[in-house]
Amino acid sequence: MKRITFLMMAIAALTGMLGFTRTPSHSAAQEGASVFVTEIPSGYRDWKLVSVAHEEGQLNDIRAILGNEIAINSYREGKLPFPEGAIVGRIAWRHVPSEENNKVFGHAQSFVAGEAPPWYLQFMVKDSKKYAATGGWGYAQFDKDGKPGPESDLKKCFPCHQAIKDRDFVFTRYSP
Amino acid sequence: MKRITFLMMAIAALTGMLGFTRTPSHSAAQEGASVFVTEIPSGYRDWKLVSVAHEEGQLNDIRAILGNEIAINSYREGKLPFPEGAIVGRIAWRHVPSEENNKVFGHAQSFVAGEAPPWYLQFMVKDSKKYAATGGWGYAQFDKDGKPGPESDLKKCFPCHQAIKDRDFVFTRYSP
Repeated sequence: MKRITFLMMAIAALTGMLGFTRTPSHSAAQEGASVFVTEIPSGYRDWKLVSVAHEEGQLNDIRAILGNEIAINSYREGKLPFPEGAIVGRIAWRHVPSEENNKVFGHAQSFVAGEAPPWYLQFMVKDSKKYAATGGWGYAQFDKDGKPGPESDLKKCFPCHQAIKDRDFVFTRYSP
Repeated sequence: MKRITFLMMAIAALTGMLGFTRTPSHSAAQEGASVFVTEIPSGYRDWKLVSVAHEEGQLNDIRAILGNEIAINSYREGKLPFPEGAIVGRIAWRHVPSEENNKVFGHAQSFVAGEAPPWYLQFMVKDSKKYAATGGWGYAQFDKDGKPGPESDLKKCFPCHQAIKDRDFVFTRYSP
């Protein structure tokens, strides 16, 4: 009898502890856009290519969109939503004319990747529980020194991405 | 004595055979731009990213430059010339405005990768002996159906690439 009482107390204590440790992240997710990714996903520069893009205007950059294995497999299989652990990365460089190429080609037509802008790296990390308030994706931005982007920038991510909810909030399509 | 004679004859025959089998490719390399790569390197779509670029004018494409492991390692170590077996690949897509992105962003500024142009895939394969006449690189072009580019197109590769002999004939620089 004593042994059963002890066991029940132990279970109650353990359940309480688990409840306690889980509470903070759960609350944070419910509060919304205050949860962002704060570390650069390791090995991202070795990831496979999803596609490329060019932004004119104030951004004036040229960019590569990469995906980790989970994201790439999901893209290639055409399956949505992306599974837990999927990460889509975006590297941007200044869109600069290549004097060297233009000279060889004999035409002013060639643009290449220049320096890193302040919005150098961006990531979307899929974790449906942690980032429940922002469509299951955590957003991140880093400059070339690895410094995370200001929260004011990160708060702008989801309001735009939610416009494409039917593609699991991911703008970039896979380019075969 | 008979055994030695037989051995010498065997060696002579073997040498002759090797000489015969090596002659055609050696001659072809010396003739110059008639040697091209005729098969798409396997697994190229999984290779790591070297950089991105955009060509205006008649090409009007956006492109990703990828490298196999040998090429990427050489790029990252900053070592030239590229070792034997290095392959640099280039995928091009039509540079098209994204109505979808522009609508969400509220500005006409976003360009993405569209359909594959006839010059969809290009490769440079390093084999100093086979492609001795074109700087040690064999050139290739394929359309989206895997059909090799016309020899008239391929003959235009080396005359431009030889302008950058000091970077082992490779235009694209690695973008960190």
